[in-house]
Amino acid sequence: MRGNMSAPAVILVRPQLGENIGAVARAMSNFGLSELRLVAPKNGWPNERAWDMATSATGILDKAKLFKTTAEAMHGIHFALGTSARLRGMEKPVCVPEEAARALVQQAQRKKRTALVFGPERTGLTNEDVVLCDGLITIPTSAENPSLNLAQAAVILGYEWLKAVASCKLQVASEVKSSATYNLQLATKQELQGYFDQLEAYLDEVNHFRTDDKKHVMWQNLRTIFIRAALNPQEVRTLRGVARALYMRRKE
Amino acid sequence: MRGNMSAPAVILVRPQLGENIGAVARAMSNFGLSELRLVAPKNGWPNERAWDMATSATGILDKAKLFKTTAEAMHGIHFALGTSARLRGMEKPVCVPEEAARALVQQAQRKKRTALVFGPERTGLTNEDVVLCDGLITIPTSAENPSLNLAQAAVILGYEWLKAVASCKLQVASEVKSSATYNLQLATKQELQGYFDQLEAYLDEVNHFRTDDKKHVMWQNLRTIFIRAALNPQEVRTLRGVARALYMRRKE
Repeated sequence: MRGNMSAPAVILVRPQLGENIGAVARAMSNFGLSELRLVAPKNGWPNERAWDMATSATGILDKAKLFKTTAEAMHGIHFALGTSARLRGMEKPVCVPEEAARALVQQAQRKKRTALVFGPERTGLTNEDVVLCDGLITIPTSAENPSLNLAQAAVILGYEWLKAVASCKLQVASEVKSSATYNLQLATKQELQGYFDQLEAYLDEVNHFRTDDKKHVMWQNLRTIFIRAALNPQEVRTLRGVARALYMRRKE
Repeated sequence: MRGNMSAPAVILVRPQLGENIGAVARAMSNFGLSELRLVAPKNGWPNERAWDMATSATGILDKAKLFKTTAEAMHGIHFALGTSARLRGMEKPVCVPEEAARALVQQAQRKKRTALVFGPERTGLTNEDVVLCDGLITIPTSAENPSLNLAQAAVILGYEWLKAVASCKLQVASEVKSSATYNLQLATKQELQGYFDQLEAYLDEVNHFRTDDKKHVMWQNLRTIFIRAALNPQEVRTLRGVARALYMRRKE
């Protein structure tokens, strides 16, 4: 699906440092974005430092298009979201990156061309830039140090974009793999029981459990541990080997 | 709630460039993380370039603690997640950043100390580092350029952490059950290490491992089993008792 769904263009409005432009290109490449548009970079363009910083994403810089104004850079775009640390008086919908990504994916599914718009490093987007956007994105940060740099903001939005594309690809949430995917060949209950039997016999013989009461509780705890460990057959053999090695040493 | 909930420590294992360490500190500060632990930085420590890069987050660098090994850096940690671009043969639960953040918040709510573990820039975490972790985080990236730099990975995990804390504040999280429900009084890494040391000493004495090669692999498997089992302190004591009982019978 991603092939058919066009990723947002990234529009950097009056960026200052070449390093930041390169780092944004790199982040774009990490998350499947490829179209970079630059509005009046303050230190001129092309800027060697951008290429140094972009590592394997220099292709994005090579193809970057240069514009004089934000309005011109919106060429062909149907839906643009601006990033802003500050909320302003303007009546624009404000969303978090996750919601923004979902909105971008929805637009892309309708064959609309979208853009993410970033302001200059220190000052951010002006009101004149913001009026051109359909909405604003605010990235949640710590109150103590709220200011993200340009590339960090691009990383987060690229990441949320890719996540939104992926969840759209999967369509059915039920297919989303859970985190506890121990992609294991779980041992059978019999294999596990074989280990338990062995261990119980050894521990009985060394009179580890003392009383039946104590045995019951301890044994329950031991089973709990090894069942929770979700052992595979090889691991069961490893544990049997360990128990046997410890037990057998008398015979040495 | 965030005041009471301790944020994960960030453990950088053998990081190379000071710039990256500084950029990680900056990302940490943006998302409310403050405890940085460094394992054997390749270019030495302190490193001036880190301070240059950290901008307003130099306080995190000033307080960063230095360790010789990853195991030592786990001091006091109950629950650690490692970041890994590659999935390896090891049987560890793998999760995406969102799930990881939820699991970290859950542990923090139970007053458990957590850590995010990052490997060196080029090579990532070794298997020896990974066995010490309770799970692995894989950050979804574009297939064309999958490799994130250290600071970018830290930005994403910090961002997801802050999101998870916020959603927990909103109580929304009360329903969200991570599938990796580590609902345990986890033992600390030291308690676990104590058990490993005991078991290793016993098994060495009975010459269970035969060759060093074999020992290395088997020992990695054994650690993996017991870390995955997410043991609580009582369970560690139970296992120590079992190992001791099996081992001691010669003396009867």
